[in-house]
Amino acid sequence: MPGFTAWYGLLKIGKPKARETLVVSAATGAVGSVVGQIAKTYGCRVVGIAGGQEKCRYAVEMLGFDACLDRFSPTFAADLAAAAPHGIDISYENAGGEIFESIWPMLNIGARVVVCGLISHYNSPSEAVGPDRLPATLMHILRRRIKVEGFIILDHYAEYFDTFYADMSKWLTDGSIAYREHVTEGIENTAQAFLDMLEGRNFGKAVVRVAADH
Amino acid sequence: MPGFTAWYGLLKIGKPKARETLVVSAATGAVGSVVGQIAKTYGCRVVGIAGGQEKCRYAVEMLGFDACLDRFSPTFAADLAAAAPHGIDISYENAGGEIFESIWPMLNIGARVVVCGLISHYNSPSEAVGPDRLPATLMHILRRRIKVEGFIILDHYAEYFDTFYADMSKWLTDGSIAYREHVTEGIENTAQAFLDMLEGRNFGKAVVRVAADH
Repeated sequence: MPGFTAWYGLLKIGKPKARETLVVSAATGAVGSVVGQIAKTYGCRVVGIAGGQEKCRYAVEMLGFDACLDRFSPTFAADLAAAAPHGIDISYENAGGEIFESIWPMLNIGARVVVCGLISHYNSPSEAVGPDRLPATLMHILRRRIKVEGFIILDHYAEYFDTFYADMSKWLTDGSIAYREHVTEGIENTAQAFLDMLEGRNFGKAVVRVAADH
Repeated sequence: MPGFTAWYGLLKIGKPKARETLVVSAATGAVGSVVGQIAKTYGCRVVGIAGGQEKCRYAVEMLGFDACLDRFSPTFAADLAAAAPHGIDISYENAGGEIFESIWPMLNIGARVVVCGLISHYNSPSEAVGPDRLPATLMHILRRRIKVEGFIILDHYAEYFDTFYADMSKWLTDGSIAYREHVTEGIENTAQAFLDMLEGRNFGKAVVRVAADH
Protein backbone atom coordinates (compact mmCIF):
# COMPACT_ATOMS: atom_id res chain seq x y z
CA MET A 1 0.00 0.00 0.00
CA PRO A 2 2.71 2.62 0.76
CA GLY A 3 4.38 1.98 -2.60
CA PHE A 4 1.06 2.28 -4.42
CA THR A 5 0.33 5.50 -2.51
CA ALA A 6 3.70 6.91 -3.54
CA TRP A 7 3.23 5.85 -7.17
CA TYR A 8 -0.31 7.21 -7.52
CA GLY A 9 0.26 10.55 -5.82
CA LEU A 10 3.47 11.24 -7.64
CA LEU A 11 2.54 10.10 -11.14
CA LYS A 12 -1.19 10.88 -11.31
CA ILE A 13 -1.21 14.16 -9.34
CA GLY A 14 2.42 15.34 -9.22
CA LYS A 15 3.14 14.46 -12.88
CA PRO A 16 6.92 14.76 -12.66
CA LYS A 17 8.99 15.98 -15.58
CA ALA A 18 12.73 15.73 -16.05
CA ARG A 19 14.75 18.50 -14.40
CA GLU A 20 11.90 19.55 -12.11
CA THR A 21 12.52 19.84 -8.37
CA LEU A 22 10.49 17.66 -6.02
CA VAL A 23 10.36 18.08 -2.26
CA VAL A 24 9.04 15.22 -0.17
CA SER A 25 8.48 15.22 3.57
CA ALA A 26 8.82 12.15 5.80
CA ALA A 27 11.47 11.29 3.23
CA THR A 28 12.66 8.01 4.72
CA GLY A 29 9.15 6.79 5.49
CA ALA A 30 7.42 4.05 3.59
CA VAL A 31 5.74 6.49 1.19
CA GLY A 32 8.33 9.26 1.03
CA SER A 33 11.26 6.97 0.30
CA VAL A 34 9.45 5.52 -2.71
CA VAL A 35 8.21 8.91 -3.94
CA GLY A 36 11.77 10.21 -4.08
CA GLN A 37 13.16 7.13 -5.75
CA ILE A 38 10.45 7.08 -8.44
CA ALA A 39 11.01 10.81 -9.03
CA LYS A 40 14.71 10.08 -9.60
CA THR A 41 13.79 7.60 -12.34
CA TYR A 42 11.87 10.47 -13.99
CA GLY A 43 14.95 12.72 -13.89
CA CYS A 44 13.83 15.05 -11.09
CA ARG A 45 16.00 16.78 -8.55
CA VAL A 46 14.81 15.22 -5.29
CA VAL A 47 15.02 17.03 -1.96
CA GLY A 48 13.89 15.05 1.06
CA ILE A 49 12.89 16.36 4.45
CA ALA A 50 13.32 14.08 7.44
CA GLY A 51 13.73 14.20 11.20
CA GLY A 52 17.41 14.10 12.09
CA GLN A 53 20.81 13.66 10.51
CA GLU A 54 20.77 9.86 10.46
CA LYS A 55 17.62 9.70 8.32
CA CYS A 56 18.97 12.43 6.06
CA ARG A 57 22.21 10.54 5.45
CA TYR A 58 20.22 7.42 4.60
CA ALA A 59 18.07 9.35 2.09
CA VAL A 60 21.11 10.66 0.24
CA GLU A 61 23.46 7.67 0.53
CA MET A 62 21.06 4.74 0.27
CA LEU A 63 18.02 6.16 -1.55
CA GLY A 64 19.96 8.40 -3.93
CA PHE A 65 18.18 11.67 -3.11
CA ASP A 66 20.05 14.80 -4.26
CA ALA A 67 19.69 16.36 -0.82
CA CYS A 68 17.86 15.75 2.43
CA LEU A 69 17.18 18.40 5.05
CA ASP A 70 16.74 17.95 8.76
CA ARG A 71 13.38 19.41 9.69
CA PHE A 72 14.77 20.26 13.13
CA SER A 73 17.48 22.50 11.65
CA PRO A 74 17.27 26.04 13.03
CA THR A 75 18.10 27.32 9.54
CA PHE A 76 15.56 25.11 7.77
CA ALA A 77 14.18 27.76 5.39
CA ALA A 78 17.67 28.74 4.28
CA ASP A 79 18.66 25.06 3.94
CA LEU A 80 15.68 24.51 1.66
CA ALA A 81 16.44 27.57 -0.47
CA ALA A 82 20.00 26.29 -0.95
CA ALA A 83 18.86 22.75 -1.80
CA ALA A 84 16.25 23.91 -4.32
CA PRO A 85 17.93 26.81 -6.12
CA HIS A 86 15.38 26.76 -8.97
CA GLY A 87 12.33 26.63 -6.68
CA ILE A 88 9.94 23.74 -6.13
CA ASP A 89 7.77 22.18 -8.85
CA ILE A 90 6.25 19.34 -6.85
CA SER A 91 5.67 19.19 -3.11
CA TYR A 92 4.63 15.75 -1.91
CA GLU A 93 3.10 16.43 1.50
CA ASN A 94 3.22 13.64 4.04
CA ALA A 95 3.55 15.85 7.08
CA GLY A 96 2.01 19.34 6.88
CA GLY A 97 2.81 21.58 9.78
CA GLU A 98 5.64 24.03 10.11
CA ILE A 99 7.57 23.05 6.98
CA PHE A 100 4.62 24.32 4.95
CA GLU A 101 5.77 27.85 5.74
CA SER A 102 9.11 27.21 4.12
CA ILE A 103 7.88 25.24 1.11
CA TRP A 104 4.98 27.37 -0.10
CA PRO A 105 6.82 30.61 -0.90
CA MET A 106 9.20 28.54 -3.03
CA LEU A 107 6.56 26.90 -5.21
CA ASN A 108 7.12 27.73 -8.87
CA ILE A 109 4.47 28.76 -11.38
CA GLY A 110 2.50 25.64 -12.26
CA ALA A 111 3.60 23.74 -9.14
CA ARG A 112 1.68 20.70 -7.90
CA VAL A 113 1.09 20.02 -4.20
CA VAL A 114 0.21 16.39 -3.53
CA VAL A 115 -1.70 16.19 -0.24
CA CYS A 116 -1.06 12.62 0.81
CA GLY A 117 -0.83 12.93 4.56
CA LEU A 118 -0.86 15.65 7.17
CA ILE A 119 0.45 13.69 10.10
CA SER A 120 1.21 16.81 12.12
CA HIS A 121 -2.45 17.88 11.89
CA TYR A 122 -4.18 14.62 12.74
CA ASN A 123 -4.38 15.38 16.43
CA SER A 124 -4.71 19.16 16.14
CA PRO A 125 -7.82 21.15 16.94
CA SER A 126 -9.72 22.06 13.78
CA GLU A 127 -9.28 25.78 14.35
CA ALA A 128 -5.74 26.97 14.95
CA VAL A 129 -4.82 30.35 16.37
CA GLY A 130 -4.43 33.16 13.83
CA PRO A 131 -3.40 34.96 11.76
CA ASP A 132 -5.57 33.32 9.12
CA ARG A 133 -3.26 32.11 6.35
CA LEU A 134 -6.05 30.89 4.07
CA PRO A 135 -6.72 34.08 2.04
CA ALA A 136 -3.03 34.57 1.28
CA THR A 137 -2.69 30.88 0.38
CA LEU A 138 -5.57 31.10 -2.08
CA MET A 139 -4.04 34.21 -3.66
CA HIS A 140 -0.75 32.33 -3.96
CA ILE A 141 -2.58 29.41 -5.64
CA LEU A 142 -4.06 31.86 -8.15
CA ARG A 143 -0.96 33.95 -8.87
CA ARG A 144 1.38 30.96 -9.21
CA ARG A 145 -1.23 28.73 -10.93
CA ILE A 146 -0.72 26.05 -8.29
CA LYS A 147 -2.64 22.79 -8.07
CA VAL A 148 -3.32 21.36 -4.61
CA GLU A 149 -4.92 17.93 -4.61
CA GLY A 150 -5.71 15.42 -1.92
CA PHE A 151 -6.22 11.72 -2.46
CA ILE A 152 -6.84 8.53 -0.54
CA ILE A 153 -5.32 5.49 -2.12
CA LEU A 154 -8.23 3.14 -1.36
CA ASP A 155 -10.16 4.92 -4.15
CA HIS A 156 -7.73 3.82 -6.83
CA TYR A 157 -7.07 0.09 -6.51
CA ALA A 158 -9.52 -0.98 -9.17
CA GLU A 159 -8.25 1.42 -11.81
CA TYR A 160 -4.53 1.55 -11.19
CA PHE A 161 -3.18 -1.25 -9.02
CA ASP A 162 -2.17 -3.52 -11.88
CA THR A 163 -0.23 -0.75 -13.63
CA PHE A 164 1.49 0.13 -10.38
CA TYR A 165 2.36 -3.50 -9.72
CA ALA A 166 4.00 -3.85 -13.12
CA ASP A 167 6.00 -0.64 -12.67
CA MET A 168 7.10 -1.50 -9.15
CA SER A 169 8.10 -5.07 -10.03
CA LYS A 170 10.37 -3.68 -12.72
CA TRP A 171 11.91 -1.08 -10.39
CA LEU A 172 12.53 -3.59 -7.60
CA THR A 173 14.13 -5.99 -10.07
CA ASP A 174 16.39 -3.41 -11.71
CA GLY A 175 17.39 -1.87 -8.38
CA SER A 176 15.73 1.53 -8.90
CA ILE A 177 13.81 1.20 -5.64
CA ALA A 178 15.14 0.16 -2.25
CA TYR A 179 13.01 -0.11 0.85
CA ARG A 180 13.41 -0.47 4.56
CA GLU A 181 11.14 -1.71 7.31
CA HIS A 182 11.13 -0.78 10.98
CA VAL A 183 10.13 -3.99 12.73
CA THR A 184 8.62 -4.07 16.20
CA GLU A 185 8.53 -7.57 17.69
CA GLY A 186 5.30 -8.85 19.22
CA ILE A 187 1.69 -7.81 18.90
CA GLU A 188 1.71 -6.66 22.52
CA ASN A 189 3.95 -3.75 21.46
CA THR A 190 1.64 -2.52 18.68
CA ALA A 191 0.26 0.50 20.55
CA GLN A 192 3.71 1.79 21.45
CA ALA A 193 4.91 1.19 17.88
CA PHE A 194 1.99 3.28 16.57
CA LEU A 195 2.72 6.13 18.98
CA ASP A 196 6.40 6.00 18.05
CA MET A 197 5.45 6.23 14.36
CA LEU A 198 3.35 9.36 14.96
CA GLU A 199 6.39 10.90 16.64
CA GLY A 200 8.71 9.90 13.80
CA ARG A 201 10.74 7.41 15.85
CA ASN A 202 10.43 4.72 13.19
CA PHE A 203 12.89 4.48 10.31
CA GLY A 204 11.19 2.98 7.25
CA LYS A 205 7.76 1.39 7.13
CA ALA A 206 6.59 0.65 10.67
CA VAL A 207 5.49 -2.99 10.88
CA VAL A 208 4.78 -5.31 13.79
CA ARG A 209 5.93 -8.94 13.59
CA VAL A 210 3.22 -11.09 15.13
CA ALA A 211 4.72 -14.47 14.26
CA ALA A 212 7.96 -15.89 12.90
CA ASP A 213 8.48 -15.80 9.12
CA HIS A 214 7.77 -19.06 7.35
CA MET B 1 -10.94 36.79 -23.00
CA PRO B 2 -13.71 36.27 -20.40
CA GLY B 3 -15.27 33.52 -22.51
CA PHE B 4 -11.92 31.82 -22.97
CA THR B 5 -11.29 32.11 -19.21
CA ALA B 6 -14.66 30.50 -18.50
CA TRP B 7 -14.06 27.73 -21.05
CA TYR B 8 -10.53 26.86 -19.90
CA GLY B 9 -11.22 26.91 -16.17
CA LEU B 10 -14.40 24.91 -16.44
CA LEU B 11 -13.34 22.30 -18.99
CA LYS B 12 -9.62 21.85 -18.27
CA ILE B 13 -9.72 22.15 -14.46
CA GLY B 14 -13.36 21.68 -13.45
CA LYS B 15 -13.97 18.80 -15.88
CA PRO B 16 -17.77 18.80 -15.62
CA LYS B 17 -19.77 15.61 -15.90
CA ALA B 18 -23.50 15.22 -16.43
CA ARG B 19 -25.61 15.43 -13.26
CA GLU B 20 -22.83 17.04 -11.23
CA THR B 21 -23.57 20.25 -9.33
CA LEU B 22 -21.57 23.36 -10.16
CA VAL B 23 -21.55 26.55 -8.11
CA VAL B 24 -20.23 29.72 -9.71
CA SER B 25 -19.79 33.08 -8.02
CA ALA B 26 -20.13 36.45 -9.79
CA ALA B 27 -22.69 34.48 -11.78
CA THR B 28 -23.86 37.24 -14.08
CA GLY B 29 -20.36 38.55 -14.72
CA ALA B 30 -18.51 38.09 -17.98
CA VAL B 31 -16.82 34.88 -16.82
CA GLY B 32 -19.45 33.47 -14.48
CA SER B 33 -22.32 33.78 -16.94
CA VAL B 34 -20.40 31.77 -19.54
CA VAL B 35 -19.20 29.17 -17.00
CA GLY B 36 -22.77 28.40 -16.01
CA GLN B 37 -24.06 28.26 -19.56
CA ILE B 38 -21.27 25.93 -20.71
CA ALA B 39 -21.88 23.74 -17.66
CA LYS B 40 -25.54 23.48 -18.66
CA THR B 41 -24.50 22.13 -22.08
CA TYR B 42 -22.60 19.41 -20.18
CA GLY B 43 -25.71 18.47 -18.23
CA CYS B 44 -24.71 19.93 -14.86
CA ARG B 45 -26.99 21.38 -12.23
CA VAL B 46 -25.86 25.04 -12.14
CA VAL B 47 -26.20 27.21 -9.05
CA GLY B 48 -25.11 30.81 -9.45
CA ILE B 49 -24.23 33.28 -6.73
CA ALA B 50 -24.68 36.97 -7.45
CA GLY B 51 -25.22 40.26 -5.67
CA GLY B 52 -28.92 41.04 -5.48
CA GLN B 53 -32.27 39.77 -6.66
CA GLU B 54 -32.16 41.43 -10.08
CA LYS B 55 -28.94 39.64 -11.09
CA CYS B 56 -30.27 36.37 -9.70
CA ARG B 57 -33.46 36.61 -11.74
CA TYR B 58 -31.40 37.28 -14.86
CA ALA B 59 -29.22 34.22 -14.18
CA VAL B 60 -32.23 31.92 -13.94
CA GLU B 61 -34.53 33.45 -16.54
CA MET B 62 -32.08 34.57 -19.22
CA LEU B 63 -29.00 32.37 -18.66
CA GLY B 64 -30.91 29.22 -17.77
CA PHE B 65 -29.23 28.50 -14.43
CA ASP B 66 -31.12 26.06 -12.22
CA ALA B 67 -30.88 28.43 -9.26
CA CYS B 68 -29.13 31.65 -8.30
CA LEU B 69 -28.56 32.83 -4.76
CA ASP B 70 -28.23 36.36 -3.49
CA ARG B 71 -24.90 36.61 -1.68
CA PHE B 72 -26.42 39.27 0.58
CA SER B 73 -29.10 36.89 1.84
CA PRO B 74 -29.02 36.54 5.64
CA THR B 75 -29.77 32.84 5.19
CA PHE B 76 -27.14 32.29 2.49
CA ALA B 77 -25.73 29.00 3.86
CA ALA B 78 -29.22 27.51 4.13
CA ASP B 79 -30.13 28.83 0.67
CA LEU B 80 -27.06 27.10 -0.76
CA ALA B 81 -27.84 23.82 0.99
CA ALA B 82 -31.35 23.89 -0.45
CA ALA B 83 -30.13 24.75 -3.96
CA ALA B 84 -27.48 22.01 -3.97
CA PRO B 85 -29.15 19.06 -2.24
CA HIS B 86 -26.52 16.59 -3.49
CA GLY B 87 -23.55 18.74 -2.49
CA ILE B 88 -21.12 20.56 -4.76
CA ASP B 89 -18.85 18.86 -7.30
CA ILE B 90 -17.33 21.95 -8.92
CA SER B 91 -16.87 25.37 -7.37
CA TYR B 92 -15.79 28.00 -9.88
CA GLU B 93 -14.38 30.78 -7.71
CA ASN B 94 -14.50 34.29 -9.07
CA ALA B 95 -14.97 36.00 -5.76
CA GLY B 96 -13.47 34.31 -2.70
CA GLY B 97 -14.41 35.90 0.59
CA GLU B 98 -17.26 35.02 2.86
CA ILE B 99 -19.10 32.64 0.55
CA PHE B 100 -16.09 30.30 0.84
CA GLU B 101 -17.34 29.43 4.33
CA SER B 102 -20.63 28.19 2.94
CA ILE B 103 -19.28 26.41 -0.13
CA TRP B 104 -16.39 24.43 1.31
CA PRO B 105 -18.25 22.23 3.80
CA MET B 106 -20.55 21.21 0.94
CA LEU B 107 -17.82 20.04 -1.43
CA ASN B 108 -18.28 16.38 -2.33
CA ILE B 109 -15.59 13.72 -2.47
CA GLY B 110 -13.54 14.36 -5.59
CA ALA B 111 -14.69 17.98 -5.92
CA ARG B 112 -12.76 20.49 -8.04
CA VAL B 113 -12.26 24.10 -6.97
CA VAL B 114 -11.34 26.33 -9.90
CA VAL B 115 -9.52 29.40 -8.57
CA CYS B 116 -10.12 31.92 -11.31
CA GLY B 117 -10.48 35.13 -9.36
CA LEU B 118 -10.56 36.26 -5.76
CA ILE B 119 -11.93 39.73 -6.23
CA SER B 120 -12.80 40.11 -2.57
CA HIS B 121 -9.15 39.51 -1.60
CA TYR B 122 -7.38 41.76 -4.07
CA ASN B 123 -7.27 44.72 -1.74
CA SER B 124 -7.02 42.76 1.51
CA PRO B 125 -3.97 42.64 3.73
CA SER B 126 -1.98 39.45 3.18
CA GLU B 127 -2.49 38.28 6.76
CA ALA B 128 -6.07 38.22 7.98
CA VAL B 129 -7.09 37.96 11.61
CA GLY B 130 -7.46 34.43 12.98
CA PRO B 131 -8.46 31.76 13.63
CA ASP B 132 -6.18 30.17 11.04
CA ARG B 133 -8.41 28.21 8.66
CA LEU B 134 -5.53 26.77 6.64
CA PRO B 135 -4.85 23.53 8.59
CA ALA B 136 -8.54 22.57 8.60
CA THR B 137 -8.78 23.42 4.89
CA LEU B 138 -5.84 21.16 4.06
CA MET B 139 -7.38 18.34 6.10
CA HIS B 140 -10.63 18.85 4.19
CA ILE B 141 -8.71 18.68 0.87
CA LEU B 142 -7.20 15.37 2.00
CA ARG B 143 -10.31 13.74 3.45
CA ARG B 144 -12.61 14.73 0.58
CA ARG B 145 -9.91 14.25 -2.14
CA ILE B 146 -10.44 17.79 -3.36
CA LYS B 147 -8.46 19.46 -6.13
CA VAL B 148 -7.86 23.22 -5.86
CA GLU B 149 -6.21 24.76 -8.88
CA GLY B 150 -5.43 28.32 -9.90
CA PHE B 151 -4.85 29.49 -13.44
CA ILE B 152 -4.23 32.64 -15.43
CA ILE B 153 -5.66 32.56 -18.90
CA LEU B 154 -2.73 34.32 -20.58
CA ASP B 155 -0.76 31.08 -20.17
CA HIS B 156 -3.09 29.10 -22.42
CA TYR B 157 -3.69 31.05 -25.64
CA ALA B 158 -1.14 29.18 -27.71
CA GLU B 159 -2.39 25.73 -26.78
CA TYR B 160 -6.14 26.16 -26.48
CA PHE B 161 -7.49 29.35 -28.06
CA ASP B 162 -8.38 27.77 -31.38
CA THR B 163 -10.32 24.94 -29.74
CA PHE B 164 -12.14 27.42 -27.54
CA TYR B 165 -12.97 29.63 -30.53
CA ALA B 166 -14.51 26.72 -32.41
CA ASP B 167 -16.58 25.65 -29.38
CA MET B 168 -17.77 29.16 -28.62
CA SER B 169 -18.67 29.94 -32.23
CA LYS B 170 -20.87 26.89 -32.25
CA TRP B 171 -22.54 27.78 -28.93
CA LEU B 172 -23.20 31.39 -29.95
CA THR B 173 -24.68 30.21 -33.25
CA ASP B 174 -26.93 27.56 -31.74
CA GLY B 175 -28.05 29.84 -28.91
CA SER B 176 -26.44 27.88 -26.05
CA ILE B 177 -24.61 30.99 -24.83
CA ALA B 178 -26.02 34.47 -24.29
CA TYR B 179 -23.96 37.40 -23.09
CA ARG B 180 -24.45 40.86 -21.74
CA GLU B 181 -22.22 43.93 -21.53
CA HIS B 182 -22.32 46.79 -19.05
CA VAL B 183 -21.32 49.81 -21.10
CA THR B 184 -19.90 52.97 -19.58
CA GLU B 185 -19.77 55.88 -22.02
CA GLY B 186 -16.58 57.90 -22.38
CA ILE B 187 -12.97 57.17 -21.52
CA GLU B 188 -13.11 59.88 -18.83
CA ASN B 189 -15.39 57.59 -16.78
CA THR B 190 -13.01 54.58 -16.86
CA ALA B 191 -11.74 54.93 -13.30
CA GLN B 192 -15.22 55.10 -11.85
CA ALA B 193 -16.32 52.16 -14.01
CA PHE B 194 -13.42 50.11 -12.66
CA LEU B 195 -14.26 50.96 -9.06
CA ASP B 196 -17.92 50.14 -9.70
CA MET B 197 -16.88 46.75 -11.12
CA LEU B 198 -14.84 45.92 -7.99
CA GLU B 199 -17.95 46.71 -5.95
CA GLY B 200 -20.19 44.59 -8.17
CA ARG B 201 -22.22 47.50 -9.56
CA ASN B 202 -21.80 46.31 -13.15
CA PHE B 203 -24.18 43.81 -14.71
CA GLY B 204 -22.38 41.79 -17.37
CA LYS B 205 -18.90 42.43 -18.75
CA ALA B 206 -17.80 45.94 -17.77
CA VAL B 207 -16.64 47.77 -20.88
CA VAL B 208 -15.97 51.45 -21.64
CA ARG B 209 -17.05 52.87 -25.00
CA VAL B 210 -14.32 55.24 -26.19
CA ALA B 211 -15.77 55.98 -29.65
CA ALA B 212 -18.94 55.33 -31.58
CA ASP B 213 -19.38 51.90 -33.21
CA HIS B 214 -18.54 51.79 -36.90
